Order: sequence, then structure tokens, then C-alpha cells
Amino acid sequence: MNSHLKEDTRFSGVLTPVIMPYNSDYSPDADRLIRQCKWMLSQSVGLAIFGTNSEGNSLSTDEKIELMDRLVDAGIDANKMMPGTGCCALTETVKLTAHAISLGCSGVLMLPPFFYKNVSDEGLYATYAEVIQRVGSSNLKIYLYHIPPVANVPISQDLIERLVRDYPSTVVGIKDSSGDWSNTKAMLERQWDDFRVFVGSEAFLLANMQNGGSGCISATANVNPAAIYELFANWQSEKADDLQAELNEVRNTFSKFPLIPALKQCVAHYAEDPDWARLRPPLLSLSSSQNADLIEKLKLLDFKMPGLKANSRATK
Amino acid sequence: MNSHLKEDTRFSGVLTPVIMPYNSDYSPDADRLIRQCKWMLSQSVGLAIFGTNSEGNSLSTDEKIELMDRLVDAGIDANKMMPGTGCCALTETVKLTAHAISLGCSGVLMLPPFFYKNVSDEGLYATYAEVIQRVGSSNLKIYLYHIPPVANVPISQDLIERLVRDYPSTVVGIKDSSGDWSNTKAMLERQWDDFRVFVGSEAFLLANMQNGGSGCISATANVNPAAIYELFANWQSEKADDLQAELNEVRNTFSKFPLIPALKQCVAHYAEDPDWARLRPPLLSLSSSQNADLIEKLKLLDFKMPGLKANSRATK
Repeated sequence: MNSHLKEDTRFSGVLTPVIMPYNSDYSPDADRLIRQCKWMLSQSVGLAIFGTNSEGNSLSTDEKIELMDRLVDAGIDANKMMPGTGCCALTETVKLTAHAISLGCSGVLMLPPFFYKNVSDEGLYATYAEVIQRVGSSNLKIYLYHIPPVANVPISQDLIERLVRDYPSTVVGIKDSSGDWSNTKAMLERQWDDFRVFVGSEAFLLANMQNGGSGCISATANVNPAAIYELFANWQSEKADDLQAELNEVRNTFSKFPLIPALKQCVAHYAEDPDWARLRPPLLSLSSSQNADLIEKLKLLDFKMPGLKANSRATK
Repeated sequence: MNSHLKEDTRFSGVLTPVIMPYNSDYSPDADRLIRQCKWMLSQSVGLAIFGTNSEGNSLSTDEKIELMDRLVDAGIDANKMMPGTGCCALTETVKLTAHAISLGCSGVLMLPPFFYKNVSDEGLYATYAEVIQRVGSSNLKIYLYHIPPVANVPISQDLIERLVRDYPSTVVGIKDSSGDWSNTKAMLERQWDDFRVFVGSEAFLLANMQNGGSGCISATANVNPAAIYELFANWQSEKADDLQAELNEVRNTFSKFPLIPALKQCVAHYAEDPDWARLRPPLLSLSSSQNADLIEKLKLLDFKMPGLKANSRATK
């Protein structure tokens, strides 16, 4: 049923940076992650594990490798996985990326090295080219990750142009988390051959589909997967504007809170599984008043997470 | 002769983020690094290895651990080392820090986790507290690393106040690379007990010493160590202003170029060792015209690196 996630080995559709559950000692909780991934797939949402909203950059390379192994061992289809593998150090990016590809992941979402700022396009090109050469696999499909509000290292249209020209079967798409529709639109207008443009927020999903984009990779799909997928599947229908408006209402509610703790609190509440609310420092959980406020706002929207609790219990 | 670097187990004086030599495959060149560290120590400059200007964040945790081992095995005094150990992931920061302390390093320079932005002081406090508890050694001495222009995650005075209060024998100093003298001065005025304030540029060295600071940790000390140390040793003398003015002239020359490649090009030139000019992507070497321009400007200053070439040859 998830065949929409791949066409010609390239992703399209809805993916989410799966939120990361932690044990009380802040170690990753692989069992809860496996359950959540299975639920996401049941909702037709692909797995962009280790994204920004997965606290992916708060995990070590070794922790990420072990989690990928655990997911695949648990029967999660690697075809549905697009792990975040871009690190500050070239050697760590290569290690993570090579491991993901060896497991059969259909793609990786690759941040530029993000510590040094004002890096030249030439230097970013050299990084991606070096990673591609070292991984050395025709199965490698890179989705660039443009998220200037967090990484503070943008991926310019000129850099994409050069990478797509030199590595047309490897650099196959981008997640645009700039929040700037004009940037997304400019990429779509370039019409690079079969280049997959994902928006980083479902607020732009309809616009993206109407302009030739491929879907969205959105944190809110952790909590509102079915509705986001419904818009993706029906973007050409008459009800598309209404579906988009409903998605926006939910997203606007979450945007009133720190996003990652709010997503986790929401899952903790609707799964009746309070351990979900834990974050690894430097990120922290919502305060109890924020928590109450969030749940109240969601109730006003008649928000639900059908199937979540049953999934959580069935596979415990 | 380097006893100035430690008093009561806390650093003072001049340290440098030692530039990182690479082999042609971009692997770290431990032998060249050992030679350079020995030369730095001969110039009375301590070793803030894996700093920003060491391309420390372009190395993996495993690479940094191996390099620390190689330096200590080569007889470099761990008492003179203040490795950079702050990573995005708590578990990597703990691993690197514990290793540095197990080798006998007198301190570590610790970036806050720098991927997520607009993190609360509470979240940064939780990170440092967790690292301190996990490393669990009374030998751990943390120098906080405030470098908002690069990390984009500042360390506030309130955060320092709280850490110093709760961990007075562990959180013992800071490197202020804000480039904002008013920030440095505000810290000095707090007069935390024996708290060591280092400026990140020798341009503020005299002012820092005159206001109760402990020295500088400066990238330019890779190329101009003796002169920077001379000001540190003579900051109360009549010639201090002249010494500061001379330092500024050299620093201003380097500031006309991308700093890390310029430092490496300078060492490559004066050591007659062209392999020093290599950087790991995303950073790149100077262009040949920038290179020629840099060397010409240094010649106009009658700039020299006495002893560098002999050190490079003697220990090859």
C-alpha cells in the first residue's frame, strides 16, 4: 500500500522525521521507535529518521547505526527509510551514509556540514562530491537538506545545479525547510530532470504539488499522518483547499509551542504512554502548564490520533 | 619553561587551536601535528587542539581520540593540552571528554551543543551538568566556549553564573570568541572565584590582562606565538602598548583572508612544507593569487617564523 513512496527508486509522498523515544538515562529506546515507525508506515508515511525533529543531531554516529540495524532487524522496510546522515565531519557522513545504503535504504537526507559558516559553494560541492565518491554505490540516492534557520548553512540553487549536472542519478532531490515558498518555487522552475522537491512543512504541500513537487517531509506528520497523506493523495480533487486548510489549523496549534517537545507530548498523551515526552538535552520537555495548554487546544480542534494507542499496546 | 600554563591546575597564558595537517586523502597527519605541537610548546604556547581553527569539528570522534593518543604517545605533555570536546550529541561529548581526562589533559574547551538554535539556558545547563556527572572525575576542568559567530548558540552570563555556583571546581573558565569586548568585560566584572577568562583574539589580550583576565586562546598564535607570548609575559611593562600594536598589525593582515587557510598557507610557506596548505572539505585552500598576496603582505611586515623550518626538518 505504500508503493507511492517509490517510483523509479525515487521517493514521493509524505515522510516524517520520526520523533525519537528515550529511556530514562537518555539512551534511545529502540523498541518504542520500532513501534512508532510501524504505525507511521500503516498511515502511508515514510521514515525520514534522524531528521531535525527526530533530534537526529543529538545522537552519536554509533547510536544511529545501531538504531538503523534494529529497525531493519525488526522488519521495517528499508525501502521506506530516508535517514538523515549529514554530519559536520566528512568521515562521519560517509560512515553513516554507507551504512544506510548497505541496509538498502532508498535514500538519505543529507545536511551540509553545518559547523563552519559562510562556507563557499565550492567547499560544499567538494564535500558532497567526496561523500559520493567514498560511498561509491550506484544505489546511493541523496536528498539535499536545505534548512537555513537551523543549520545556518544554506544550499544555493547554483550548488544544486552543479551537483545535479555532475551526479544526475545520485543527487535526486531536496527537502526545502527554508519556510520560504519563493525558494521552493525557484527550484521547481528549474525543472531538473526528475528532481524531487519536498517541502519541509505541509503548509506548502498543496502549492508544492500544484507546481510539480513530490510531497512533504514534515514533523507534524508524526501526529497528523493520515490527514496529510489524504491531501497528498487528493491534491487534484475539489476538496484539496479544504484539506489544506484543516492541516493548517493543526499545524498552527503546534507552532504555538516548541515543536519537538509538543509533538512528543502529543504522542505521549494520545498513546497514554508518558515516557514518550522525554527529550535528550539540550532539548527539554514542555512545562506542565504548556502541556495542559497544548492538550486543551487540541481538544478544541477535536484532534485525534486514531490507531495510535492500539498500535502502542498491540506490539508492546 | 611552560609552567605559566598551569597554576593550581588552572590554565593561564597563551594557547592556540593548533592547525590540523592532512594527508592527500584528507586523513589527519599525526606526525606533522606532533611536530607542530612540539614547536608550539617550545614557543611557550599551550595546545587547544580540536578548536574551531583546528578544523576540530571536521574530524570524527574516533579520529580525535586517535590523535590525542598519538600526541601523548609521542611525549607531548597532556598538562599542556586543552582539547575541544563539545559535540552536538551528549554521548559524543562525554566520550571525548572522558578520554581527554583519562590521558591527563588539564582541561577541555567545551562548545555547547550547536545544532539546535534558540535553546534555553535550562537546556544548556542540563547538557553541561549531564556531561559532568557522566565523566565523573574530579580532574575534569571545563573551559566553556562562547563563539556565537560560528556556533550560533551563545553562553549567557546567567548560565555561567549557575554552572560556576553548582560546579565551582569543574567549570573553571571560558574562551570568549564573541569578538565583543563588552561581553568579556562583563564576565571579568562578575569576579567568579578564580574563573579564567581567555579572549579568543590577541587583539584583546592587553585589555584582558589589565582587567583580570588569564590570557588568550588565539588562532594567530599558530604563526605568531613568540610575539603573543611576549605581550602576555610583559603586559605590565612600559612596552605593552607597542607590543599590542605589533600583534594587531600581523592579525589585521591575516584578517584580510579566510583565516584557517591563511594560517596553513603561512606555515606551509615558512616551513617550506607545502602539504601544510591542505584543508578538509568543506574548507578549502587559498587560491594561488590569495596565497601570493598573503606572502607579499607578510614580507612587507618583515614577518618571520624563527625556528619553524628547523623544527620541521629536525623531527621529520
